[in-house]
Amino acid sequence: MPETELLHVDTPFSVSFTHRVRFTADVLDPVNPALRDAAAAGGNTPARLAAFADQGLLDAWPDLPRRLHAYAAAYPSVFAPVDAVHVVPGGERCKNDRGVFDGLCRQIHDAQLCRQSFVLALGGGAVLDAVGFAAAVAHRGIRLIRVPSTTLAQADSGLAVKNGINAFGRKNFLGCFAPPWAVLCDERWLGTLGDADWRSGFSEAVKVAVLKDADFFARLAADAPGIRARDLGVALPALHRCAQIHLHHIVAGGDPFELTHARPLDFGHWSAHKLEQMTGYRLRHGHAVAVGIALDCTYAALLGLFPRPDAQAVVACLAALGLPVFDPALHDGAELWRGAEEFRQHLGGTLCITLPRALGAALDVHQLERAAVLAAVAELAARSARTPVG
Amino acid sequence: MPETELLHVDTPFSVSFTHRVRFTADVLDPVNPALRDAAAAGGNTPARLAAFADQGLLDAWPDLPRRLHAYAAAYPSVFAPVDAVHVVPGGERCKNDRGVFDGLCRQIHDAQLCRQSFVLALGGGAVLDAVGFAAAVAHRGIRLIRVPSTTLAQADSGLAVKNGINAFGRKNFLGCFAPPWAVLCDERWLGTLGDADWRSGFSEAVKVAVLKDADFFARLAADAPGIRARDLGVALPALHRCAQIHLHHIVAGGDPFELTHARPLDFGHWSAHKLEQMTGYRLRHGHAVAVGIALDCTYAALLGLFPRPDAQAVVACLAALGLPVFDPALHDGAELWRGAEEFRQHLGGTLCITLPRALGAALDVHQLERAAVLAAVAELAARSARTPVG
Repeated sequence: MPETELLHVDTPFSVSFTHRVRFTADVLDPVNPALRDAAAAGGNTPARLAAFADQGLLDAWPDLPRRLHAYAAAYPSVFAPVDAVHVVPGGERCKNDRGVFDGLCRQIHDAQLCRQSFVLALGGGAVLDAVGFAAAVAHRGIRLIRVPSTTLAQADSGLAVKNGINAFGRKNFLGCFAPPWAVLCDERWLGTLGDADWRSGFSEAVKVAVLKDADFFARLAADAPGIRARDLGVALPALHRCAQIHLHHIVAGGDPFELTHARPLDFGHWSAHKLEQMTGYRLRHGHAVAVGIALDCTYAALLGLFPRPDAQAVVACLAALGLPVFDPALHDGAELWRGAEEFRQHLGGTLCITLPRALGAALDVHQLERAAVLAAVAELAARSARTPVG
Repeated sequence: MPETELLHVDTPFSVSFTHRVRFTADVLDPVNPALRDAAAAGGNTPARLAAFADQGLLDAWPDLPRRLHAYAAAYPSVFAPVDAVHVVPGGERCKNDRGVFDGLCRQIHDAQLCRQSFVLALGGGAVLDAVGFAAAVAHRGIRLIRVPSTTLAQADSGLAVKNGINAFGRKNFLGCFAPPWAVLCDERWLGTLGDADWRSGFSEAVKVAVLKDADFFARLAADAPGIRARDLGVALPALHRCAQIHLHHIVAGGDPFELTHARPLDFGHWSAHKLEQMTGYRLRHGHAVAVGIALDCTYAALLGLFPRPDAQAVVACLAALGLPVFDPALHDGAELWRGAEEFRQHLGGTLCITLPRALGAALDVHQLERAAVLAAVAELAARSARTPVG
């Protein structure tokens, strides 16, 4: 070591986690062991548990608090008595309003949870993100059990090892990496989603299929009408396959906390994040991702990176799922362009955009050609003008 | 799997980090490669760097910003031009004042850092904690280079893989686990510490010596007068040994993110954290830890768990270092007692207090006997009444 160094240490170390995911039906039925077993796996029972539920979920399932209390009461050796369920405003509002986040921290504090207690978050992706961030930073991390209630959260965000809220007008500017203790997906709750929320999760399925699994894409394209018609027989296998690919990426992708630059599952997201913000979150995440995928596929085809018939097949699949493939906000090219720079900053380092090079195969590019992006926007706008919506 | 489960995944995965620590002299001298090499190791150069310095450090070293700019300018291939150094109020205030934390997040946002940029935090443990938390949650984690300026931060907190701020009247209630990118300890900066801050770090040295290394304790006891007199020839080896033991605990202790209940280096801390809060942070952390160690040693001796002569030797060593071994706040038994419960909640699960059973050897206990704690307080109060203050 140089003379100026008196002690020089470079020590590698690693931190081990377990990703526990269950796709199940009726998670609050006391005969369903998933929630009980997840809590019991903590080894410090009876455990305290503070529950936070999405307002939208409670509207659809008003007996949820009563059923949760009954569930916990059925296993007194596993659960300490559960207090009232805290209500969290659903959708992006809970990530935009700093007061909501501060309130979540205070509620966790007031519930006198310890690090081996549980925070139970029930709802859509935004609620899981905000509650998850509060749980991750209270006492430097309370065990989080997510119960995602939307197609999007069950297929994608609910399985992620991250969380976050929006700040300074930037999506997910504040957050951290914190693997959940367990993720329990309840298929029954999907039944009460509005159609727009129902469709929303399938853009992520298209995303991973196009990048990773040509057979899955072919199945999605064939099943799109059934999925759109909410046929669980084809929709659930699609969600499960999407979840499996996301899980595999987290646990086997080599960089679960995204410490280097690897994020190949972010296809379609550079513009999607910006479109959400540009439309004041009128465009929900899954729909913005659909537009982003359509844009990136069209862009890749224009550059000759991706066969044009495949790009058209992806756009057609999204449309058949009832997802948007264009939004007028795309016309604000300057603002859209800022999205690419914000995306680069959020991921760090050089810009890295994942594009398809064939169905089921991806490539990374490190710059965007502005003229081609604008041409892709124009092409999607023209398609939108001649295609009836929905 | 039970019939209610459609997909059941329990997948272990791990996340890898490298702990880089350098003890060096004059970190801002351009001939010192430590800071340049730490940034270059990120592989994404020239890198943006936003610097945050402790007000107290800037008071002692007013040319620090000028020297930092000169250092960065000397390596234009490694560092992008550095903006003005942000000033952070030192001491616990920056952890207690939520406005300071929010300001740090905004400054990081405004600096347009990406995840492969660097936040450089220079100062004492409180500033490193607050800046580190902001860096850890902005973009879900910007690379943090800590330059600890106090004995306490160089020997202990600056090496930790955690950060945090105080909230709801609870020390470190909000924070997360996030290994720093690098820790660069500058011995020159120790020269301008006030005596109280100088002594503060050595209570952590006594702590790890008593738990882990009898030879180190013997050396500390022998060198205490020299350390108190600020003889670097004996003080620096003590800080380095303390740092080594803390590092070993993090990288080889098996649970760096404290996901289970293991925290054997928290000896003396259940009361110390509470005493800081009870005294409105008049008692700084290192001094509160000294009182906490004296209390726990005396308590352990009263219960017959730790030889009384050893307990007296530890108390005498702390006193010889010029550290307090009693504080009148200890007389508020009810409030002190709440500290044990708060400590349990912060760590999670069952109460776990590490006590010495011999010099260099520890044991864990899972309850505190209130009468014996009060008797230990009384014994230390009596000692304090007959001993002139250091």
